Amino acid sequence: MLEATIQEASTLKRLLDAVKELVTDGNFECNDEGIHLQAMDNSHVALVSASLRSEGFSNFRCDRPITLGVNLASLTKVIKCAKDDDEVRLTAADSADNLQLVYNSKASDRVAQYDVKLMDIDQETLTIPDTDYDATVSMSSAEFARLCRDLGALGESVAIEVTKEGVRFSCEGDAANGTVLLKADSSGGRHSGGSSSKMKIKKEEDEDARMDEDASEDDGGEKEDEDEDDEEETSKKRKRSKASSEKAPKGKAKKARKTEEEGDVQGVQLVMSQHVALTFSIKYLLNFAKSANLCNRVTLSLSNDVPLMVQYDFGQGVIKYFLAPKLTDS
Amino acid sequence: MLEATIQEASTLKRLLDAVKELVTDGNFECNDEGIHLQAMDNSHVALVSASLRSEGFSNFRCDRPITLGVNLASLTKVIKCAKDDDEVRLTAADSADNLQLVYNSKASDRVAQYDVKLMDIDQETLTIPDTDYDATVSMSSAEFARLCRDLGALGESVAIEVTKEGVRFSCEGDAANGTVLLKADSSGGRHSGGSSSKMKIKKEEDEDARMDEDASEDDGGEKEDEDEDDEEETSKKRKRSKASSEKAPKGKAKKARKTEEEGDVQGVQLVMSQHVALTFSIKYLLNFAKSANLCNRVTLSLSNDVPLMVQYDFGQGVIKYFLAPKLTDS
Amino acid sequence: MLEATIQEASTLKRLLDAVKELVTDGNFECNDEGIHLQAMDNSHVALVSASLRSEGFSNFRCDRPITLGVNLASLTKVIKCAKDDDEVRLTAADSADNLQLVYNSKASDRVAQYDVKLMDIDQETLTIPDTDYDATVSMSSAEFARLCRDLGALGESVAIEVTKEGVRFSCEGDAANGTVLLKADSSGGRHSGGSSSKMKIKKEEDEDARMDEDASEDDGGEKEDEDEDDEEETSKKRKRSKASSEKAPKGKAKKARKTEEEGDVQGVQLVMSQHVALTFSIKYLLNFAKSANLCNRVTLSLSNDVPLMVQYDFGQGVIKYFLAPKLTDS
Repeated sequence: MLEATIQEASTLKRLLDAVKELVTDGNFECNDEGIHLQAMDNSHVALVSASLRSEGFSNFRCDRPITLGVNLASLTKVIKCAKDDDEVRLTAADSADNLQLVYNSKASDRVAQYDVKLMDIDQETLTIPDTDYDATVSMSSAEFARLCRDLGALGESVAIEVTKEGVRFSCEGDAANGTVLLKADSSGGRHSGGSSSKMKIKKEEDEDARMDEDASEDDGGEKEDEDEDDEEETSKKRKRSKASSEKAPKGKAKKARKTEEEGDVQGVQLVMSQHVALTFSIKYLLNFAKSANLCNRVTLSLSNDVPLMVQYDFGQGVIKYFLAPKLTDS
Repeated sequence: MLEATIQEASTLKRLLDAVKELVTDGNFECNDEGIHLQAMDNSHVALVSASLRSEGFSNFRCDRPITLGVNLASLTKVIKCAKDDDEVRLTAADSADNLQLVYNSKASDRVAQYDVKLMDIDQETLTIPDTDYDATVSMSSAEFARLCRDLGALGESVAIEVTKEGVRFSCEGDAANGTVLLKADSSGGRHSGGSSSKMKIKKEEDEDARMDEDASEDDGGEKEDEDEDDEEETSKKRKRSKASSEKAPKGKAKKARKTEEEGDVQGVQLVMSQHVALTFSIKYLLNFAKSANLCNRVTLSLSNDVPLMVQYDFGQGVIKYFLAPKLTDS
Repeated sequence: MLEATIQEASTLKRLLDAVKELVTDGNFECNDEGIHLQAMDNSHVALVSASLRSEGFSNFRCDRPITLGVNLASLTKVIKCAKDDDEVRLTAADSADNLQLVYNSKASDRVAQYDVKLMDIDQETLTIPDTDYDATVSMSSAEFARLCRDLGALGESVAIEVTKEGVRFSCEGDAANGTVLLKADSSGGRHSGGSSSKMKIKKEEDEDARMDEDASEDDGGEKEDEDEDDEEETSKKRKRSKASSEKAPKGKAKKARKTEEEGDVQGVQLVMSQHVALTFSIKYLLNFAKSANLCNRVTLSLSNDVPLMVQYDFGQGVIKYFLAPKLTDS
């Protein structure tokens, strides 16, 4: 039996927004560690792996592992019926036909209860091998979303190249070509020339992944840009649940403690042992980029000839996307 | 001859927004009491009855009764050409071909005049029988709109059930079921167990219908919910024409004086003499709910096997919708 | 070789927004005076002539005249990839295949480079004869856009009539007719009865064209009008690059100095030597009116049987539209 209460419906809304267009039906695996969804996208090109940790819930109880097969469109409809700040209680009996969601309004005497029908989904869980990536880039999630949108207007493929200088996204289109270079933060000597220091680098990278910036600061004076609407709304919508937490001053990323606090780390942090250049289908990246709703930072992990991992670490969990590179002649 | 001046075009805009999708062509009956429109919806399932009282106009003159047959889509186009705070003067001669609308801008030297062609509409006016309803529910108009939208995403019918506890809206859909319970305000012993006290209750109900709340207070912390946009805009758009009027403190509803003031009454007020459970087509309720633009409160009046009445009392008039219940086997 | 740097990408964005729906492909003629685009609209009914003066750039170098044939849809896509406050550097070699645009972000270490493919466009440049117009009307660009939208909802043609009283826009539609009268500012005796004073009038008109008002002041209390959104956004989006410039007090238009400052001149200024009444296709005016993004004032110049000129003078340049009147029997 699953009984789990989450303080804010907005977390579930954003999580579903981030996967519902990639995945039609999915199995939510619940156990005492939390709730986990792994699924191939409908065209079997991308893999999404999303987890809500049990500690992310104000109350969590799952006696024995239980699998909830859900149509994501239906679940999304139901989640949209919650107000963002409603408390949500999820309940499912051990061999239930329904997942029950109860929304308690904090402001009024309103109780809403929804029952989503469960289904048997024949899906095997893939084991994702641990990979030592050649390059890891941590950047603003809003910037990544923007990049994908900009280049996606020109063509269908984007080449991602990581060098000492920074990370470069390029797209060749029929009418125009585009290249965006994000320079790596020079402070702190984050670049590593060889694989010998990889272990240390890996640790730094873990820290980076937990650090966050306020994307709206990055957007500076673009208040009047109508094309930025998505991005701006993204930062406004995101609730700083940890607004009172201590902020790590910019440039002191290394000192950030291993708590879940969101720091003010801006710019691009880079960890690499080798030059990487890979080409991907933009439409999948555009889909992944919707997770910018969930947190301010995204981490891209790349190795030549290995699927890209795009990872969003938010307070209550993590969402990872995997996408195989395109074969190119270059 | 009709000559009527209304201070703010916004009143007309909202009134038309609230009926234009239900009704294609309608007869506006003008007499010394005001302007009245009664029409069946296009599928002859719902009835709408809207009135603007002559006192709601800054100037009103209608020597003898006159009927103005209008295409509502055309009138809506013309009303949209007014700025919200334009003063609107309506004029029609006794057997005119046109209804003339003149918009005077308060801020600039701009005068706009529109002539809407009139038509002969063959429509009989139905007499709506006075009904002693078994249950009357007064609630936030924004909450009602939200409910209809939420449940309308799941299925086509909504069951409304009024009990001592409160009012319950339920919908059964293919993929999910939903139930929203709004608990009745416990203060003041508003619930009546028998029909003996119905007269007294009716009086209270009349008071309730005039009381209003600011829906935005009800919406609490949902500033970041993208799905709430309609609702939020609704409360922002609504101009508090009586902002300076005395506010009835919350919980003192019974003391509210019989003026048109908008009080701060929140929550759900319930008057009932009998348990009621009826099922309706959601798509009509969704249409009715557009009137949330006009005022903060809505009153649902229900009796078993009798059409539901959904009533919005705004400053200058009232709009009532009637909808027959669906036949169910339950 | 062309090398030109503009401080804010927003200028280019708005300029392209204003022409991209009228023109598919266009030749940008670059010389030491600046960059100029002249093109017929796709149906060969309207002519657009847009100029960016070399002084409008922070850096401008164009050794010898060079023609850049561009697909405007492609260029628009590329310009949209800039943030509004990005600095934009345009570069093209003398017989280049590409126009290069480099965006430097002021806030972050982000450099984006786009190459738009150039094409050979067979287009002759028309010489627009200098015309002494019978009437010139300077008004709020937002008001003009609003007018076109309002009347465009009723019919396809608008009659523009300039009299001593002011300027009147009329439209006859199937379901309704509409007329909007904007009264001319009475202060300053701007109206001229005869052609003898035309030279003097012409000079005043030049002054008028440089004066601007804040459209948002004109819009007064219409904050809650959902139909005004375009207009309101328009005024918000427009950046007052000269916010610190001295403001000409209202009604002292004649004293406004011949600088590029934006004054606070409101209302409608009229210069006429003869009564003018012409009819135009609204859909073109609606297209022209998109330039309201560029500046607060628009000037309409009319003579009987001569194309209307609609002119927007913004800080860095000017955009002029020409549209032949419709033949009418009246």
